[in-house]
Amino acid sequence: MEKRYDLLTLGEVLLRLSPPAGERLSRTGELKLHVGGAELNVAAGAGQLGLKTGIITRLPDSELGDLVCNQIRYQGAGDEFAVREKGKDARLGLYYYETASAPRKPAVVYDRKNSSFCRISPEEFPEEMYASARCFHTSGITLALGEKARSTAVFMMKRFKEQGARISFDVNFRGNLWTGEEARVCIEEILPLVDIFFCSEDTARLTFHKEGKLPDIMKSFAREYPISVVASTRRVVHSPRSHSFGSLIYSSSTDTYYQEEPYENIEVMDRIGSGDAYVAGALAGLLTDWENPLRAVSLGNAASAAKNTVAGDLPCMTLPEIEVMIREHHSSGPTAEMRR
Amino acid sequence: MEKRYDLLTLGEVLLRLSPPAGERLSRTGELKLHVGGAELNVAAGAGQLGLKTGIITRLPDSELGDLVCNQIRYQGAGDEFAVREKGKDARLGLYYYETASAPRKPAVVYDRKNSSFCRISPEEFPEEMYASARCFHTSGITLALGEKARSTAVFMMKRFKEQGARISFDVNFRGNLWTGEEARVCIEEILPLVDIFFCSEDTARLTFHKEGKLPDIMKSFAREYPISVVASTRRVVHSPRSHSFGSLIYSSSTDTYYQEEPYENIEVMDRIGSGDAYVAGALAGLLTDWENPLRAVSLGNAASAAKNTVAGDLPCMTLPEIEVMIREHHSSGPTAEMRR
Amino acid sequence: MEKRYDLLTLGEVLLRLSPPAGERLSRTGELKLHVGGAELNVAAGAGQLGLKTGIITRLPDSELGDLVCNQIRYQGAGDEFAVREKGKDARLGLYYYETASAPRKPAVVYDRKNSSFCRISPEEFPEEMYASARCFHTSGITLALGEKARSTAVFMMKRFKEQGARISFDVNFRGNLWTGEEARVCIEEILPLVDIFFCSEDTARLTFHKEGKLPDIMKSFAREYPISVVASTRRVVHSPRSHSFGSLIYSSSTDTYYQEEPYENIEVMDRIGSGDAYVAGALAGLLTDWENPLRAVSLGNAASAAKNTVAGDLPCMTLPEIEVMIREHHSSGPTAEMRR
Amino acid sequence: MEKRYDLLTLGEVLLRLSPPAGERLSRTGELKLHVGGAELNVAAGAGQLGLKTGIITRLPDSELGDLVCNQIRYQGAGDEFAVREKGKDARLGLYYYETASAPRKPAVVYDRKNSSFCRISPEEFPEEMYASARCFHTSGITLALGEKARSTAVFMMKRFKEQGARISFDVNFRGNLWTGEEARVCIEEILPLVDIFFCSEDTARLTFHKEGKLPDIMKSFAREYPISVVASTRRVVHSPRSHSFGSLIYSSSTDTYYQEEPYENIEVMDRIGSGDAYVAGALAGLLTDWENPLRAVSLGNAASAAKNTVAGDLPCMTLPEIEVMIREHHSSGPTAEMRR
Amino acid sequence: MEKRYDLLTLGEVLLRLSPPAGERLSRTGELKLHVGGAELNVAAGAGQLGLKTGIITRLPDSELGDLVCNQIRYQGAGDEFAVREKGKDARLGLYYYETASAPRKPAVVYDRKNSSFCRISPEEFPEEMYASARCFHTSGITLALGEKARSTAVFMMKRFKEQGARISFDVNFRGNLWTGEEARVCIEEILPLVDIFFCSEDTARLTFHKEGKLPDIMKSFAREYPISVVASTRRVVHSPRSHSFGSLIYSSSTDTYYQEEPYENIEVMDRIGSGDAYVAGALAGLLTDWENPLRAVSLGNAASAAKNTVAGDLPCMTLPEIEVMIREHHSSGPTAEMRR
Amino acid sequence: MEKRYDLLTLGEVLLRLSPPAGERLSRTGELKLHVGGAELNVAAGAGQLGLKTGIITRLPDSELGDLVCNQIRYQGAGDEFAVREKGKDARLGLYYYETASAPRKPAVVYDRKNSSFCRISPEEFPEEMYASARCFHTSGITLALGEKARSTAVFMMKRFKEQGARISFDVNFRGNLWTGEEARVCIEEILPLVDIFFCSEDTARLTFHKEGKLPDIMKSFAREYPISVVASTRRVVHSPRSHSFGSLIYSSSTDTYYQEEPYENIEVMDRIGSGDAYVAGALAGLLTDWENPLRAVSLGNAASAAKNTVAGDLPCMTLPEIEVMIREHHSSGPTAEMRR
Repeated sequence: MEKRYDLLTLGEVLLRLSPPAGERLSRTGELKLHVGGAELNVAAGAGQLGLKTGIITRLPDSELGDLVCNQIRYQGAGDEFAVREKGKDARLGLYYYETASAPRKPAVVYDRKNSSFCRISPEEFPEEMYASARCFHTSGITLALGEKARSTAVFMMKRFKEQGARISFDVNFRGNLWTGEEARVCIEEILPLVDIFFCSEDTARLTFHKEGKLPDIMKSFAREYPISVVASTRRVVHSPRSHSFGSLIYSSSTDTYYQEEPYENIEVMDRIGSGDAYVAGALAGLLTDWENPLRAVSLGNAASAAKNTVAGDLPCMTLPEIEVMIREHHSSGPTAEMRR
Repeated sequence: MEKRYDLLTLGEVLLRLSPPAGERLSRTGELKLHVGGAELNVAAGAGQLGLKTGIITRLPDSELGDLVCNQIRYQGAGDEFAVREKGKDARLGLYYYETASAPRKPAVVYDRKNSSFCRISPEEFPEEMYASARCFHTSGITLALGEKARSTAVFMMKRFKEQGARISFDVNFRGNLWTGEEARVCIEEILPLVDIFFCSEDTARLTFHKEGKLPDIMKSFAREYPISVVASTRRVVHSPRSHSFGSLIYSSSTDTYYQEEPYENIEVMDRIGSGDAYVAGALAGLLTDWENPLRAVSLGNAASAAKNTVAGDLPCMTLPEIEVMIREHHSSGPTAEMRR
Repeated sequence: MEKRYDLLTLGEVLLRLSPPAGERLSRTGELKLHVGGAELNVAAGAGQLGLKTGIITRLPDSELGDLVCNQIRYQGAGDEFAVREKGKDARLGLYYYETASAPRKPAVVYDRKNSSFCRISPEEFPEEMYASARCFHTSGITLALGEKARSTAVFMMKRFKEQGARISFDVNFRGNLWTGEEARVCIEEILPLVDIFFCSEDTARLTFHKEGKLPDIMKSFAREYPISVVASTRRVVHSPRSHSFGSLIYSSSTDTYYQEEPYENIEVMDRIGSGDAYVAGALAGLLTDWENPLRAVSLGNAASAAKNTVAGDLPCMTLPEIEVMIREHHSSGPTAEMRR
Repeated sequence: MEKRYDLLTLGEVLLRLSPPAGERLSRTGELKLHVGGAELNVAAGAGQLGLKTGIITRLPDSELGDLVCNQIRYQGAGDEFAVREKGKDARLGLYYYETASAPRKPAVVYDRKNSSFCRISPEEFPEEMYASARCFHTSGITLALGEKARSTAVFMMKRFKEQGARISFDVNFRGNLWTGEEARVCIEEILPLVDIFFCSEDTARLTFHKEGKLPDIMKSFAREYPISVVASTRRVVHSPRSHSFGSLIYSSSTDTYYQEEPYENIEVMDRIGSGDAYVAGALAGLLTDWENPLRAVSLGNAASAAKNTVAGDLPCMTLPEIEVMIREHHSSGPTAEMRR
Repeated sequence: MEKRYDLLTLGEVLLRLSPPAGERLSRTGELKLHVGGAELNVAAGAGQLGLKTGIITRLPDSELGDLVCNQIRYQGAGDEFAVREKGKDARLGLYYYETASAPRKPAVVYDRKNSSFCRISPEEFPEEMYASARCFHTSGITLALGEKARSTAVFMMKRFKEQGARISFDVNFRGNLWTGEEARVCIEEILPLVDIFFCSEDTARLTFHKEGKLPDIMKSFAREYPISVVASTRRVVHSPRSHSFGSLIYSSSTDTYYQEEPYENIEVMDRIGSGDAYVAGALAGLLTDWENPLRAVSLGNAASAAKNTVAGDLPCMTLPEIEVMIREHHSSGPTAEMRR
Repeated sequence: MEKRYDLLTLGEVLLRLSPPAGERLSRTGELKLHVGGAELNVAAGAGQLGLKTGIITRLPDSELGDLVCNQIRYQGAGDEFAVREKGKDARLGLYYYETASAPRKPAVVYDRKNSSFCRISPEEFPEEMYASARCFHTSGITLALGEKARSTAVFMMKRFKEQGARISFDVNFRGNLWTGEEARVCIEEILPLVDIFFCSEDTARLTFHKEGKLPDIMKSFAREYPISVVASTRRVVHSPRSHSFGSLIYSSSTDTYYQEEPYENIEVMDRIGSGDAYVAGALAGLLTDWENPLRAVSLGNAASAAKNTVAGDLPCMTLPEIEVMIREHHSSGPTAEMRR
């Protein structure tokens, strides 16, 4: 029998407030408002690629909670499991983001402490939720948001796994939320539950003390834990406005590596969330064609490249247009200058 | 010898984030950014009317602190005593504000807990500060912001008073910050220090349990405490876009009441901060012509009426244009349609 | 057993393109984009008031179809039954709308011919749809959009009725789509299917040739047809920026009329869709408390008044805030100036 | 034989720079750009009402001159006689305008000295120009702009008159350009040339020392000079956002006065240029139906009322929509809420 | 005797609606409005370069027709031959355009069917029109817009030719309007009328089945038909934001080819209409200096390069600034960083 | 004893009006408003880097003067010595600036003649001013603004020098204000007063007729005049959007040259004022660490590079973020992609 969701993700949703492109935060009088959050980015991105997805989160019971729910649905995910906190302590975390051009760097100022999400607990969610999804995804950011968020995440991983869902996890290490050592200890505890593991080369080396070549590092995770798929991305930052992006996927069942030519010359409009868009694309690939990790590579790379071309944390794409992008990326001949 | 400041105020500065006029918060993608805060509104307003003023406050040591300092100076006050908090706990309080038209009401959502200001303490400020001002002003909002803010405010009231400054206080009761009873107990403690007292009729009745007519209530404060001037404003809200505004001032030294015709038909663009603009105008009047409270009434009323016509918490006025507004308000003949 | 939807509506969705407030269409360089359509307005409005609602419609299979679906979900309705038309003939109807102030009048320019909706047919929708809703609503606009739209609407009315849904119909006469006589003949054919009937006094007189007082006219519909509820609204236009609004509901089972004081002094920001917001509110009332038509009057009137204060065809409201508005409308004492 | 232009006007074109509605000039970071000038407003307005019109002016030979020419054509007048000044002295006059709401007044800051127009001289214009128009119009503003502008205006009045054009003149007294006495002396010199004379009651009394009732004053001009038509407008300013407007026209050939009910409750968006829109409407009436001054009254009043509802100095109207406005103004029955 | 127009073009004018730069159509709430159309782009561009030009077109008799006429004049062409269609079928074609950055591609969605232009016929235009222009231009787009448009175009080509005008034609092949074969058959019929022929290399090969090198292909057209000038452009698309552009012109009378160094590193803001800007520049060159096709190459290339740097379909340039651009393009020394 | 200001600069402040990025001045309806002026740019930039700075200038006594003073304080300088001119001649100079992308060039149109600044004279400033600053800076632009400005500048240089201030001077040659020969004669007169001399290589060659290599030219100034420090910048313009920037400083006391690697690949948002930002950075370096000219090179280069990334004439930077930029510029290893 078909489950209601292909993918449920657990994570905090934040407001993002940005001055107009090229303007400084300290001198602005206007802010563009976006919503975002690593796991919402994944849920919405995968939703845009055709999966039925939803976000498990906790929001203040105010106009800001309404705003976030409206945005969740707008961007392609479900808000059925977005619970609300009443009372004066309820708050929505937020961050300020200013773009830049070389040699100035983009900058982020966080204001996410004590958000309603930090007080999330499993009791607020219905028992049926755990049986409703084919895959559950969360990231290291959720684990780093405090005791309640962490225990809720671990509890949910176990309960979803029991109900037959695949467990996906993205390390997504953030040095401003916890130390590398805290991260390592915590993540090594949950790795036995993980089926699909996203980890960058830098994090593998610095946090998990891995050594050697990237493929060997990736395989080593799959040897130590019952992980089916390990994915690692590689972004090269030429300037705030110009990046390259590619990825490598290792499948432990066939002991095979998958990759394609990276996207060169990405003209970056907004880089935030492009890593999450990769996860969204890769999961969309794996959950629709588990035997074909190359599809996950293609969808992940294209989704990430495409995300860089739109403002906001969330991607804005459709499966047909990503298919065209992949086809043109693989084509060596002339391609149309424009879609008409 | 002349003091460096005519007026220093103590209070929290908040970001205010508003959707475009007429748009709902839950459906917006853009926010106008203003800074505000009752005591900044007073300092900036009085600065615009020609006083040398400054704000005593505490801000995060981030781009947001830079933003606020830039705005303080821009709007006409000094930022010399805006100290900065470093570290991850530093945050700038904020609130969301949406305008409305009848029958919908404007709405505010606060997110100001745990701001850097709440951890303010006298040690961060130089001893010379207390001798540098002719008048010190704060409001009940500061007292309601927790133990540290309250004790700092009381300490500063005493220290400024010792150094010869007049002490001004606006009750500014906010039911979402403390109860009426908490406010009454706390404010009755500081009233012996107060020279200039701003209190609305409603607050006098509900919080201080005063009864009788407004003039008698005002006089009763001056009898119970060594207050020189009691001021009370009266706003009539016809609709979110149409208000009237007037005020009454009682001077205890001459046992006299001062008032003028209220401003009828104020076409309201943004009502927030119009009470503080009144305080700014009244203080500008009193501190430049102490013997003439009618001047304080005129400046206060005009400043408040003018504030309603501009967006943001802060007024935007100059003394010459307020003088013209007062003259036209007092004139019975035809007045120019436009200033050219 | 609970049905999946409280309300499904059938109708065309249009783009609405408007110059900035106060600017003329013939001189603009920017357009605000809204989506709308009488039946979407009803579905979204009722969704915002807590019903589970969806729109049955037909859209081009282009970015414009994506845009509309994103907006449908954003505004609070479901897009499950928004089917897509491929090919070069697929188009999204649209209209241009410019606001005005007296003595200039607002103006509309339609460009909705040959839209994908006009080629809608029942075959594109799943059989299960008819059993999934407690109520089905459409309006005279759908009937006026050509042979296919009309026969589809009649077919669906019958099929939903067979499956136990209540049938709601709003005459919504538009002289630019058909003549009064065409409307009368067509609507009289479907009235035997209708449970809830929305008809303005003017339309009743001009189109259905009714005479006498409004209450008698309303009752006469319920005598001639098996209609349970007849609702009629009354808007007074003082100027493009100032309206009054009230309504009357007749319940045939109890032979009783329901009404409340009209909303006076509505400060109109955007009048389009306020009639549909009334239908949304009234249906939200009837479908949650069928025995209490006064609730439908209150919700309908408040929803319509509130709609006038926001830009776009669609309302933007929540049930809690509409409850407050109703309470204050019924209260004779002082009410808060602002929600905080 | 038909002349190429129905109306040529002579006058300076200015840039107008305005902060967004409701914002103060001293605190803005954005300016809306409009072009305007009394005589351009007349030429464009009359052009929008169907006359073939053009403006005789002088502009800098820079991008600003291009900008003005583009706008002249955009708004409905011809730029054939907009000559250009090269060199470093060339400049475009400008003014800053901020709107307001009560009790604040709108404000204007001029920066128009030494503009290219001030150095205008007849030599720059082709001889054929004088025979190409049925009517020539200018205003007291042009006369007040210095020796060159004044002598050019007088020269052109004579030359156009010789070639059979009607001469129209609007006093348009501006106290910041010259004194009343200067104006009187200068204008009395040119009145013998004038066929159509626009003069407000105030100016007639204060500048021309007329006494008695307005109709008598108007007739007195026609007795002293060979003027055919005298027109006088009456605006009542209830607040910056609410005006009334009406006018009176006296025809000397029939010794008759013409008027209609004034427009009450004009919801003012932007009042600048509404006097010139009246002139445009009145001239459009007179030049298409000289025997029917009531038509001039109706067109003038409606054009002026309509101008108040759009931003910028220039009207934005079409003859069909003004016809509808006049019909509804004269109608006592119900009128449509909206044009569709 | 001098003709009234140097150039008249025949073609449809479309609205273009675009989300803000970098935003997706499916997620926007605002649209920038431009007007465009291959032949308007040519007429306006040539007008900006000093020719007297006008557009022959057909528009709805609504505010949208007003909007287009205002824009035509604003951009530098005449609207004398823009006729209007009354009635419910009248519509203005439009298209949606979103920009992009690599690897995403710009996208166009058309909604131009059944526009008023499609029902154009020669009867609506005055006989004098044909004698009023030195050159008549249209493109393959007009031929592809249906039977009426095609027969009108052919009729006008013949009539203008009879009156001594040069006939210019741009193939401008659009695969979404007709097939290559339809185009070939139709165009081969009109080539005997054509004096100036614009055809890209790709189109020559794919549609006209030409083979060999480009210069030979170009000459072959001039051999088969009495064409005087054949022009072919070459754009290289490095990314949506970076293009190169050059062209080749063949003159049959002297059997000579003309070209210059292409513009490398064009920083593309908006590529739409840059091909038409080339035609505008080339015609401006040919019609002012027929014996000097190199001038046409220079003006065409510079106009096209310049068009890429401004938003909208229409160029925005003046002859003096294009002269400077050509001079700097031909100069090998240092050039100014800025025009001041 | 500490002086009140580290740096006072003398110069005109101008409004700068710019169409939105990528739009042409001749076709815009909106202008962004910035303030600027070479010496304000220096004062504000140095203020942002931690110096206490102020601007000596003269402004009209209108809302425009208020606007400029608000901006001066907002951007980090003091407005104590911004005097006001009353009366009808008072005006604020301004200029229009449009950005561009290749091959189009940015363009400036000046309108600065007869500004209030041109009538500046020493009498308007208090005697105490001359003793209040450690350094006085002005530029060749001030000298070129006419007799009054020049004599005031020379007078102030002398008076500040007498009071012990260092004198800084930037040649800043502008060919549209005076000829090279006028500049040379005038500047050679004031060079005996100058301690810190900013002069570009081109100006040294063309205006001062220097020959040989740049280091030799720089040293020659220090030999001919008692100059302590000579600084020369080098910008390479790859396109309007891509520059490189570096500089060379010569210290005469140690006869040493200082430089660092230039900034390559500056992604230019707005180039105006980047030369002044260099002066600001260099002076911030010299005035805080006179013995370490390399610090001046680093601060100057980074400040200039950073300025290019923000809109407006004025930089927007803080010392901590410039320190990070310098550190990363000197680092050869990987650097963070973003500041968080």
